[in-house]
Amino acid sequence: MNKSNLYCVIMAGGIGSRFWPMSTTKYPKQFQDILGTGRTMIQQTYDRISELFPAENIFVVTSKEYLELTYAQLPEINPNHIVGEPMMKNTAACNLYMANKISEINPEAQLVVLPADHLILKEARFQEKITLALSLVQQNDYLITLGIKPTRPDTGYGYIQYLSEENKSIFKVKTFTEKPNLEIAKAFLESGDFLWNAGIFVWSVKSIKNAFEKYLPEMVQQFNYCEYNSQKEEHCIEEIYPKLTKISIDNGILEKAKNVHVIPADLGWSDLGTWTSVYQNAAKDDQNNAVNSKNILSYNSKGNVVRLKSKNKAAIIDGLKNYIVVDTDKALLICPRDHDQLIKDYVQDLKNLKKGDRFM
Amino acid sequence: MNKSNLYCVIMAGGIGSRFWPMSTTKYPKQFQDILGTGRTMIQQTYDRISELFPAENIFVVTSKEYLELTYAQLPEINPNHIVGEPMMKNTAACNLYMANKISEINPEAQLVVLPADHLILKEARFQEKITLALSLVQQNDYLITLGIKPTRPDTGYGYIQYLSEENKSIFKVKTFTEKPNLEIAKAFLESGDFLWNAGIFVWSVKSIKNAFEKYLPEMVQQFNYCEYNSQKEEHCIEEIYPKLTKISIDNGILEKAKNVHVIPADLGWSDLGTWTSVYQNAAKDDQNNAVNSKNILSYNSKGNVVRLKSKNKAAIIDGLKNYIVVDTDKALLICPRDHDQLIKDYVQDLKNLKKGDRFM
Repeated sequence: MNKSNLYCVIMAGGIGSRFWPMSTTKYPKQFQDILGTGRTMIQQTYDRISELFPAENIFVVTSKEYLELTYAQLPEINPNHIVGEPMMKNTAACNLYMANKISEINPEAQLVVLPADHLILKEARFQEKITLALSLVQQNDYLITLGIKPTRPDTGYGYIQYLSEENKSIFKVKTFTEKPNLEIAKAFLESGDFLWNAGIFVWSVKSIKNAFEKYLPEMVQQFNYCEYNSQKEEHCIEEIYPKLTKISIDNGILEKAKNVHVIPADLGWSDLGTWTSVYQNAAKDDQNNAVNSKNILSYNSKGNVVRLKSKNKAAIIDGLKNYIVVDTDKALLICPRDHDQLIKDYVQDLKNLKKGDRFM
Repeated sequence: MNKSNLYCVIMAGGIGSRFWPMSTTKYPKQFQDILGTGRTMIQQTYDRISELFPAENIFVVTSKEYLELTYAQLPEINPNHIVGEPMMKNTAACNLYMANKISEINPEAQLVVLPADHLILKEARFQEKITLALSLVQQNDYLITLGIKPTRPDTGYGYIQYLSEENKSIFKVKTFTEKPNLEIAKAFLESGDFLWNAGIFVWSVKSIKNAFEKYLPEMVQQFNYCEYNSQKEEHCIEEIYPKLTKISIDNGILEKAKNVHVIPADLGWSDLGTWTSVYQNAAKDDQNNAVNSKNILSYNSKGNVVRLKSKNKAAIIDGLKNYIVVDTDKALLICPRDHDQLIKDYVQDLKNLKKGDRFM
């Protein structure tokens, strides 16, 4: 495979409000060492893909607000390849933007697009599946997504139904279903021919641009107004972004396109979308507490995830079972682990307080 | 009554480790607004006694370490009357020290000695009982303590057994018992002739000096070495303090003296010795949570005491019942209210950590 045609885009624009107060709009999850491994999520993502792609072929697309954070955390990446969107417009827009930008550099590019804030434990398996996908999109007009075998009826994920054939490593996608209710999620899990959509996409710039032409032609028109990789690009993007439709790449393209394929991949994957998933993936002490500091002493406490932002702070935890305790200089959260989906509502309540924004 | 003979000493040397992490060795409870009323405990104590005594007759004895805090919080008091002990030697030493110092100024002085960190809700009743005691010690060689009618079999207090006679407002003390076990405390409560020792003492300097001569003659010798209210005092005190016996005024004098009397006083008193007593005395919301900030939002939570030191911090509390939550820049405490007696042990565990002292 000609490596010079292989490109990677790390999507790093999220806010991570379900991770409040550790993740804030000013300093979101992808820029933090959520699991306490010594590398932030976006650095882990970079580490994972850096061997597969020439350094100059790696791009990051994030919010304009996070450009400085990204420069600082990923000094290995050419700053011109770290792109700031002027506002959040969901994932269709940034995918078209990056496809146009890379296509202008190399119209033969094959592209991997992946989120900056996911955990993947099985790195070799990941690289193997990505390599397979890249070789497939070189020869076929495929839009490929990696699919994770579901382990529970999670209602927070997108599900992919595929047409199963024996002895194959890639399958045609039949349907996409975003965030099903619990009953449906259980049925999906039992049926066995559904996978979680990990949001890791592989395609050629040609194929994805064709798909946009077909399913989001207006957005293509809007983006065609700009001249990429020129001094005018930034100003032009500022002009078109306010007019763009907010739609995900899943809803806008993948649910409609006929050439979507899935590669099932056992990656040791978690989207680390909630404190519960952090708890599940973090190292635990003999009482099953996941703590991130030696200065945390626990008594009569089991199954908690405790995160102190300051290394100079101590904590005493007595009598808590299965709680989330997160402390930063701006906010303290104490909440049962099974209420982690409510955190974004609590944050909204705080915002509704006078001057509540200062805690975000 | 000749007001010029009336003196008051506020004892403010405690560390308050049961109030960690709000109370620390650097910034103990008496210098904090524990109840959120807008005045610190020592300021409240000053407010309570300031009408009874000429301003120049009010003294504070504290640790040398807390002199600056005291100057700052009580600018009304002559700085020469704010006395710093070079080390903690329990309450006998500081009582003899202050008796000597005041006696040198006015050998006819009548003296009220009281802790800086207690809550008294019934201020008028307090002033009435103090005035009564002062008039009694002017004419009698009495050592008087105020006694609080017990409301529960508390094992953390000292108990005073008195010889009851009808229609009297002052009684001779029969026995003192420090911190009885629960069974004995229950028996005391039932018998009806026991009171809690509030640590509020009234005596003339003559009477207390006589008592020291009789029961702690060695300590009297040691203190006689110094010249009070002179430039040499501080240096001399530094020299004698290391040699002094550590003993409380209760153990050293009151348990032995034959002229100890008690005035029962319904003062709305609490020593605020634990977070539970703070909880009991603090204002509560409709879910019986005692919180000290509008930036605390609680859900499914009842009966908690929550204290955030920073006004610029928010907290979300979900699913806690009857907990203590205290947050400072150095430490976070989460602990069931009925474990508040264990806090000092937890603090000791923290100190045993390498560099644990920085959290105190």
